[in-house]
Amino acid sequence: MGDITVLRLSHRAGRDPRMSTHLGLTARVYGAKQFLLAGDNDSAILQSLIDVKERFGGDMEVHHESSPLGFLRRFVADGGIAVHLTMYGLPYQEVIPDLPSDKPIVIVVGGAKVSREYYEMCQYNVAVGNQPHSEVAALAGFMERLNDGVFPPEHFKGGKLEIHPSGRGKDMRQEE
Amino acid sequence: MGDITVLRLSHRAGRDPRMSTHLGLTARVYGAKQFLLAGDNDSAILQSLIDVKERFGGDMEVHHESSPLGFLRRFVADGGIAVHLTMYGLPYQEVIPDLPSDKPIVIVVGGAKVSREYYEMCQYNVAVGNQPHSEVAALAGFMERLNDGVFPPEHFKGGKLEIHPSGRGKDMRQEE
Repeated sequence: MGDITVLRLSHRAGRDPRMSTHLGLTARVYGAKQFLLAGDNDSAILQSLIDVKERFGGDMEVHHESSPLGFLRRFVADGGIAVHLTMYGLPYQEVIPDLPSDKPIVIVVGGAKVSREYYEMCQYNVAVGNQPHSEVAALAGFMERLNDGVFPPEHFKGGKLEIHPSGRGKDMRQEE
Repeated sequence: MGDITVLRLSHRAGRDPRMSTHLGLTARVYGAKQFLLAGDNDSAILQSLIDVKERFGGDMEVHHESSPLGFLRRFVADGGIAVHLTMYGLPYQEVIPDLPSDKPIVIVVGGAKVSREYYEMCQYNVAVGNQPHSEVAALAGFMERLNDGVFPPEHFKGGKLEIHPSGRGKDMRQEE
C-alpha cells in the first residue's frame, strides 16, 4: 500500500471545526501519512491534531494547503492516484480493488461545494453509498475497506499515553 | 444479520447538531432499522433525518429516546446484543466475528461523557482503534466491517430522488 494523504477541501473556521478535526482523527487512525486542510488556515484545528500526535503517538503530518488544485495537479503528475469521495461517484466496493497498491494515494474530501475541476482532476470519483452521507463516515468506510481496518497499536509510537483494550472499563497508561 | 439500532447518547442541542445528524446518516447508509437520539429532544435533527428518508428512501425509523438506560435494559433482557463503541474497548476486529448473527444489535455511541452504567449494561465494549477517534468514523468503521459495506441501492426504496453512479459528474434523477 502506498502512502495515503487526506486532503480536506473548503474548511470554514467557525463553522466546521469539529468536522475537520474528526476528518483528521479518522485519517490518523487509518494510518494516513499526511492530513492537509484546505480552505481557511485554521491553526486551532491543526494544533489539536498535533496535540493528539504528541499525546498518543504516530507520525501523521498536518499542514494547511493553500492551493489544493495545484497540490492535486502535482500529485497526479508525479504518478499519484487521486480519489475524490462524493455521493455521486462510482461504488467504492468496485473501485478499491482496482486501485494500484504501489502508488501514493490522496483521498479528497469535499466541503460545502466542490467545483467541477476536482471531479476532472481526480482519476476516481467514488461513492461510499450513493446516498446523502457524512463526509467523516465516508472517509472512515473508504479507509476501513482500503486498509482492511485501522492501523495496529505498533504504528502509534512516540506518544505519552497508551490505551490498553478493556472489556469493561478504561485502562490508559503513561508510556514508560 | 439481525436488525440494527443505533443509539446516540447525550445529544446537546446547539452544540452537536452536525455530529448527531452525521451519526443518523451513517446509521441509514449502513442499513440500520432505527436511529435513537438520547439527550436533548432536538426535533430539528430528527426532522432532517426524516426529510432525507422522504427524499432518498429507505425505512429507518428515527425517534427521541428519553430513557436510554431503560431502553438498553429492556433490549438486553429481550435477548438483544448491546455494543458500546469506546476508544477503551476491545478491538472490533476480534469482537465482530463473535457477535451472534441472528439477534438484534444496538450500537451505543457515546456523547461527551458516558457513565459507568453503560459500560456494565452493554455486553460488549468495543474500540475501532484504541485511539482518540471520531464517533462518526467509529460507527462507520464498525458498521462497514459488521455489514461488509453499505446497503445496496435496492434497500433505499420509496424516495423521490435516486443517484446513479457516475465516474465524472453528477447524475441525480427523479424517481418515476
